[in-house]
Amino acid sequence: MTMRVESDTMGTINVPADKYYGAQTARSLANFDIGGEKMPREIITAFGVLKKAAALANHKLGLLDETTRDLIVTAADEVIAGKLAAHFPLVVWQTGSGTQSNMNVNEVISNRGIELAGGTMGSKTPVHPNDHVNMSQSSNDTYPTAMHIAAVEAIEGYLFKRVMLLRDTLAAKAEAYMDVVKIGRTHLQDATPLTLGQEISGWVAQIDYALANIKATLPQLKELALGGTAVGTGLNAHPDYAVAVAEEIATLTGRDFVTGPNKFALLAGHDAFVGSSGALKQLAVAFMKIANDVRWLASGPRSGLGELTIPENEPGSSIMPGKVNPTQSEAMTMVVAQVMGNDAAIGFAASQGNFELNVFKPVIAYNFLQSVRLLADAAQSFNDHCAVGIEPDRARIQELVDKSLMLVTALNRRIGYDNAAKIAKTAHRNGTTLREEAIALGLLSGEEFDAEVKPELMVGPLKLKS
Amino acid sequence: MTMRVESDTMGTINVPADKYYGAQTARSLANFDIGGEKMPREIITAFGVLKKAAALANHKLGLLDETTRDLIVTAADEVIAGKLAAHFPLVVWQTGSGTQSNMNVNEVISNRGIELAGGTMGSKTPVHPNDHVNMSQSSNDTYPTAMHIAAVEAIEGYLFKRVMLLRDTLAAKAEAYMDVVKIGRTHLQDATPLTLGQEISGWVAQIDYALANIKATLPQLKELALGGTAVGTGLNAHPDYAVAVAEEIATLTGRDFVTGPNKFALLAGHDAFVGSSGALKQLAVAFMKIANDVRWLASGPRSGLGELTIPENEPGSSIMPGKVNPTQSEAMTMVVAQVMGNDAAIGFAASQGNFELNVFKPVIAYNFLQSVRLLADAAQSFNDHCAVGIEPDRARIQELVDKSLMLVTALNRRIGYDNAAKIAKTAHRNGTTLREEAIALGLLSGEEFDAEVKPELMVGPLKLKS
Amino acid sequence: MTMRVESDTMGTINVPADKYYGAQTARSLANFDIGGEKMPREIITAFGVLKKAAALANHKLGLLDETTRDLIVTAADEVIAGKLAAHFPLVVWQTGSGTQSNMNVNEVISNRGIELAGGTMGSKTPVHPNDHVNMSQSSNDTYPTAMHIAAVEAIEGYLFKRVMLLRDTLAAKAEAYMDVVKIGRTHLQDATPLTLGQEISGWVAQIDYALANIKATLPQLKELALGGTAVGTGLNAHPDYAVAVAEEIATLTGRDFVTGPNKFALLAGHDAFVGSSGALKQLAVAFMKIANDVRWLASGPRSGLGELTIPENEPGSSIMPGKVNPTQSEAMTMVVAQVMGNDAAIGFAASQGNFELNVFKPVIAYNFLQSVRLLADAAQSFNDHCAVGIEPDRARIQELVDKSLMLVTALNRRIGYDNAAKIAKTAHRNGTTLREEAIALGLLSGEEFDAEVKPELMVGPLKLKS
Amino acid sequence: MTMRVESDTMGTINVPADKYYGAQTARSLANFDIGGEKMPREIITAFGVLKKAAALANHKLGLLDETTRDLIVTAADEVIAGKLAAHFPLVVWQTGSGTQSNMNVNEVISNRGIELAGGTMGSKTPVHPNDHVNMSQSSNDTYPTAMHIAAVEAIEGYLFKRVMLLRDTLAAKAEAYMDVVKIGRTHLQDATPLTLGQEISGWVAQIDYALANIKATLPQLKELALGGTAVGTGLNAHPDYAVAVAEEIATLTGRDFVTGPNKFALLAGHDAFVGSSGALKQLAVAFMKIANDVRWLASGPRSGLGELTIPENEPGSSIMPGKVNPTQSEAMTMVVAQVMGNDAAIGFAASQGNFELNVFKPVIAYNFLQSVRLLADAAQSFNDHCAVGIEPDRARIQELVDKSLMLVTALNRRIGYDNAAKIAKTAHRNGTTLREEAIALGLLSGEEFDAEVKPELMVGPLKLKS
Repeated sequence: MTMRVESDTMGTINVPADKYYGAQTARSLANFDIGGEKMPREIITAFGVLKKAAALANHKLGLLDETTRDLIVTAADEVIAGKLAAHFPLVVWQTGSGTQSNMNVNEVISNRGIELAGGTMGSKTPVHPNDHVNMSQSSNDTYPTAMHIAAVEAIEGYLFKRVMLLRDTLAAKAEAYMDVVKIGRTHLQDATPLTLGQEISGWVAQIDYALANIKATLPQLKELALGGTAVGTGLNAHPDYAVAVAEEIATLTGRDFVTGPNKFALLAGHDAFVGSSGALKQLAVAFMKIANDVRWLASGPRSGLGELTIPENEPGSSIMPGKVNPTQSEAMTMVVAQVMGNDAAIGFAASQGNFELNVFKPVIAYNFLQSVRLLADAAQSFNDHCAVGIEPDRARIQELVDKSLMLVTALNRRIGYDNAAKIAKTAHRNGTTLREEAIALGLLSGEEFDAEVKPELMVGPLKLKS
Repeated sequence: MTMRVESDTMGTINVPADKYYGAQTARSLANFDIGGEKMPREIITAFGVLKKAAALANHKLGLLDETTRDLIVTAADEVIAGKLAAHFPLVVWQTGSGTQSNMNVNEVISNRGIELAGGTMGSKTPVHPNDHVNMSQSSNDTYPTAMHIAAVEAIEGYLFKRVMLLRDTLAAKAEAYMDVVKIGRTHLQDATPLTLGQEISGWVAQIDYALANIKATLPQLKELALGGTAVGTGLNAHPDYAVAVAEEIATLTGRDFVTGPNKFALLAGHDAFVGSSGALKQLAVAFMKIANDVRWLASGPRSGLGELTIPENEPGSSIMPGKVNPTQSEAMTMVVAQVMGNDAAIGFAASQGNFELNVFKPVIAYNFLQSVRLLADAAQSFNDHCAVGIEPDRARIQELVDKSLMLVTALNRRIGYDNAAKIAKTAHRNGTTLREEAIALGLLSGEEFDAEVKPELMVGPLKLKS
Repeated sequence: MTMRVESDTMGTINVPADKYYGAQTARSLANFDIGGEKMPREIITAFGVLKKAAALANHKLGLLDETTRDLIVTAADEVIAGKLAAHFPLVVWQTGSGTQSNMNVNEVISNRGIELAGGTMGSKTPVHPNDHVNMSQSSNDTYPTAMHIAAVEAIEGYLFKRVMLLRDTLAAKAEAYMDVVKIGRTHLQDATPLTLGQEISGWVAQIDYALANIKATLPQLKELALGGTAVGTGLNAHPDYAVAVAEEIATLTGRDFVTGPNKFALLAGHDAFVGSSGALKQLAVAFMKIANDVRWLASGPRSGLGELTIPENEPGSSIMPGKVNPTQSEAMTMVVAQVMGNDAAIGFAASQGNFELNVFKPVIAYNFLQSVRLLADAAQSFNDHCAVGIEPDRARIQELVDKSLMLVTALNRRIGYDNAAKIAKTAHRNGTTLREEAIALGLLSGEEFDAEVKPELMVGPLKLKS
Repeated sequence: MTMRVESDTMGTINVPADKYYGAQTARSLANFDIGGEKMPREIITAFGVLKKAAALANHKLGLLDETTRDLIVTAADEVIAGKLAAHFPLVVWQTGSGTQSNMNVNEVISNRGIELAGGTMGSKTPVHPNDHVNMSQSSNDTYPTAMHIAAVEAIEGYLFKRVMLLRDTLAAKAEAYMDVVKIGRTHLQDATPLTLGQEISGWVAQIDYALANIKATLPQLKELALGGTAVGTGLNAHPDYAVAVAEEIATLTGRDFVTGPNKFALLAGHDAFVGSSGALKQLAVAFMKIANDVRWLASGPRSGLGELTIPENEPGSSIMPGKVNPTQSEAMTMVVAQVMGNDAAIGFAASQGNFELNVFKPVIAYNFLQSVRLLADAAQSFNDHCAVGIEPDRARIQELVDKSLMLVTALNRRIGYDNAAKIAKTAHRNGTTLREEAIALGLLSGEEFDAEVKPELMVGPLKLKS
């Protein structure tokens, strides 16, 4: 491998000649050979936005010349576009402030800017990683800013769209099957009926609640630490910088980011991620319920509940038809387990700040962004490969309603509680239907029974006499 | 023990004569001899409100006569007032729908109403536990309603007040010490200075963030399941009942409860508690940071950081003065650990609903209400016994600032980076101060040094030239 | 309330005259008005054992006279017997070393000893709480010792017995139903058959695995910190004390406690509880599987799986027979949720030690002992009120096996894969049985079918030709 | 991209011509576009071992001819060697039984075997993915077997070595500094002295405890599910197969794997991972304590505790010497946070089995193996880049001991408690040392003080008079 010499305050070090990164990235690679989990790409992209915004703001404040600004902006745009992904090799398990990833970005933009300007990589001229790319910044305020940008972008720009796909599919299913009367189940035991549409509407409501709570936590994620520099005081930053750079970020992203009113909290705590992760967990919990209901209702083909059919996406049993494993539910519920774990990691990490800095930033970002990504992708996958194809097995649903003993309550009015109970007990003992025993006991004719026992009248509140 | 005979559909059973509860409570006691954690009193109180509101609504809808209504209302008021606490012996670890606690309340109000009316306890006349006290209700919609009432009351009526006490104490401290310049610390290492007031302001901001996120989750907790009855359809309930009873509850509590638009979700999922618990965890995380900062800053008396003094509330070492154990921080951080655990239990429990019912209701209520209570009480205790008495040790703070090597950056402008670094390195090697070495190296006089190195100018952004 | 004056190094304070506790307990009550969770009674009992053992060891080492020893022993025996429970009012949320509970015990034993000797309570004569009851001890080594004694006693003396009851009941069920062939289910879908006994044997194996892992963690809990005194060095303790007092504790409890070889770790870390709690969580996970399988298999009566019947312990639906809510499963699974949460709290708390002390001791003890107690009680309750009464619904089980399409694989040998698949597909399409379609398709007679398709031959490995 | 046609029971599908995988892998890629977390390489390697062992066992039992065996073995060896890594593209979030990864392995070994034999890829001849590579197996027993092999290999073959490096480094440090007397700290407050070696010995003991508990859980991970086939009964497997294949695996790995006595538990529960993960969490907790102690003791350079120096691995402040950020501690503690989260995910996932299968297998494997890998790598990194370079700052340590007020207890014997307390209080008030005030108060001369106050005599139990 051809190498190039790069330097920092500790001295020189060889780096691969085909990589834009410099000495501090190279040292981090040597010092942190831990796991293989790379700094999330959303963080790198957010750093691209941040460095571009900083260059624009620094120029506007008269701190950075136009040429250097443009070199930084061009290189940052390439970072944002993902073209330089190969130049960000660092893992999550590094310095807890994310300093090394901040420097990785500084080095890459510096060297790419130098290259664009026809200079010599590693020379730090004409684009210096610290003096220019990191101007008015500290790792301590850039990394949390990148965390916030990445989180908001992931939620508003990715998660919401994918979850809404599933939500809308289910809402359509709820409407489509609003009249399919089925047995209710409480304690896993037969209960009074409801419609399949009503049941599915509950799933939709759970998703809506979760999305509302996620949204409610976004304002805190939209407050940015940039301008706080090393300890939150803003030392060495232009007094107008914090507001200016937040405005640039808002413009670049099209999202309503603002500068945070208290930078001390934003460097030393990442509590907003705890609240937002709790809301993500709420979504996970809703997904668990939905995925479980779907797979249980689709259980069978012969020895399960069998009220729903779901798409068959991969080979089940070659010889036994009808065995469709609910694999999308399984992927979804595994994602739920992961989100639960990630939430625990985030809570722990966020609680461990001291004084002016929390040094668990990368692990928070890693878990939070994984949760968002997995929930979004699982929603899309579950939507495309399962939810859109959910169909009721109307015959099976009807069979279970007909067999149900819960409907006997409808007879109270006509034949009294004692006779109704007698029918139910006899049917239970004999394994027959209420209708069969009502006739056999001579209490009602089949026509009378059918006139009284109408499950479709049992799926709402009492009808008032008009 | 004198006994009385009570009955339910399974037959008769003896209950203590001096207790208002009936057969189903007695059976639960026999069947669930698990742990000793009682159904939280906040749930019992909320059930009192609920049963009163239901009686009022049922009467307004023409379903319940005035006399019975009044008997229920009177008994329910006693439940709310806590007078009947001895009559609610059931534990958390019972049926997962909380049915037995709902029946416990029904039985107690029935028998107390009967007693008020001069009737015979256990006779179910003139106040029947099911027909009257539980009218238009099912355990499946009452228990979640009680959970929501209890949670909102605990947060809005208890937690906020106690946390605001601490928040305001800290805000006052932040203001009082806004000019006390101290060393900053990042990575636990000396960093550029800030003021003690700034540092404390970060704590206040963390609390404010957490409270804002808790508040943002309340709307979902204010949506009530009542009116959904057994499976969410509202079967057997008057069509106007759901709205009417929510209005009664809002009136009785003075809080803006409304009937939930989708009862299926409210019976089968308790996801709102996941989001709210996540927000409570955010508060816990903030408390962890604050309690830790306080005890570290107060560490010593000789071998710690020693920048703060805190009240001495209990005997430390009898012979060694100045050893003040930060016991309020310890209680607070133990509460944090508990809230983290409770959040995990809530997430697990809330994810396990099936079809029309989640049967982990009591364990969710238990953990959630414990979290609220502990956070509130710990905030008050920490406020009263620690925060109000936090004082800076100004001499120690000054000493550390004076000794700091971080201030050397202030000399860059005057003597150049290289000379400044030389001073710092010499001072580090010799264990001396910057001032001493600046003079010894002949680079500045003491007066010149003092004129340049002003920590108080390093606690904010650059001052613009006017 | 009549009061008595007690004193400590901070001065005097009034305490209720009818209580044995003294000044430090009174101060803790005033300073820690947080929640209501009392120090677990198992800890108090363990302290009784500890103080008795210390008195015996101190006497043997010539440090404590016989009279004082006997007074301490007598009072400690009353603590162990639970007679003095009313005198231990402190909550969990106190100083993180548990110092105040240690002093509570010292004060109670002192005053009770004084009373026995005819002295004046509060006079500290002839039994001094520090000089005599706490002799050769520090809170820092007593509280962890009490934690270990309590944990081992709870596990070996309580948990194992109760869990073994359930384990043995299930093992008997497994044997009783070893020949009941039933449908298997994987992915919730019909699979090849197994016997009910085999299925239940899996539950037994899960419990056995969990118990084995719990047992494997006990040796660490049997290592005691006593003798380490304040920081682990054993300062002020007799050099033979650590071994001597551990031997006394072993004798008193009948369990093989030993003195820990490294006291620093035992004061500053409580990692053993993390490992043991992980093993308890393994038991919880096994219980979750068992409780879930039981309630799903007993789901119905008409619209569920219905393969098992379970005891009806409380009123279900009055009019609808056969609806038996699986309330013991529900209590059990709520306990599982709690144990998961407790494990998270323990892990967090145990990770937060610093230097010579971990100050999260009470919250660790509280959660750990609650987990043990709840698992034990839930096992007993589930055993007594559910497991002993589990019965197969043989008709239903047979029906599902007969209807199953999975058995078609048994026909491969006789009629070839293609014909077998044809039968299965036709039966699936028509909703008929394999037998019906085999006959209808003219591929086999009923007798031939019965001779080939023997589910009971499908519940084990291939039989070798002899 | 050149494509090749592959087929399964659902029909044909195009796959990249340069990949060995087949139709089912291709379908999984299309159906599970979720996240990017690949099936852990340890699982793929374990599958290589498993398939090789199965081929060997099947051959020995007369089920597989020698030629096919050899083709499978050769291809499996390449899988084990990691040569075919590019052919395993599937993510964790797939079917919960891991079926698709099992098929991925079957397809790759089949096609590679076919290639070796000069056949046509996709022809399934002469090495059929199901009939030969998967012979005597089911996904339901192979995936859990691969989990166990991977877990044991990761722990015994990777984790233990790396952790022992750190453990031994610390043990050497403990020995090296066994005589360096330093101040003790409890509640973060100054306490009686101990030696640095004693303090570090506590860290070593914590690691030893954790390793012992991890080891204690290994026997369960060494029990293999193979032979259970689809539901645990062993249907279609040779009766001697289970034992035979476990022996092959033991031979191939050099680890004492055995066939599990109850296959039902091994397919339907993965509880052993819960216990083992709990033990891994114990190690994480120990690491948290150690990493925290190190960074606090190395805090400074001027405003912290400053008792230790640690290596400077990357640029700190360029101008301020001595600011060495404890980045290895930070990476380590972030790993701890991750392990805590992973443990929560594992517990949740393991609790969700139903009937004959737990379908959270890949998420359990993913989290468990990540925990092992991160703990191992962090241990090595912390060892190499921090622990080996830990040095005491003897002057600072001595300074803190000299200044300490805790040593006054040593004067009790000579001048009485009251005089000793007087010295301490005066020194505390004046900010002076005990020695200074002892002389100033005329109670002892400097020589007398030095003769009495010997911290080195305070780091152990009382010396007995000889």
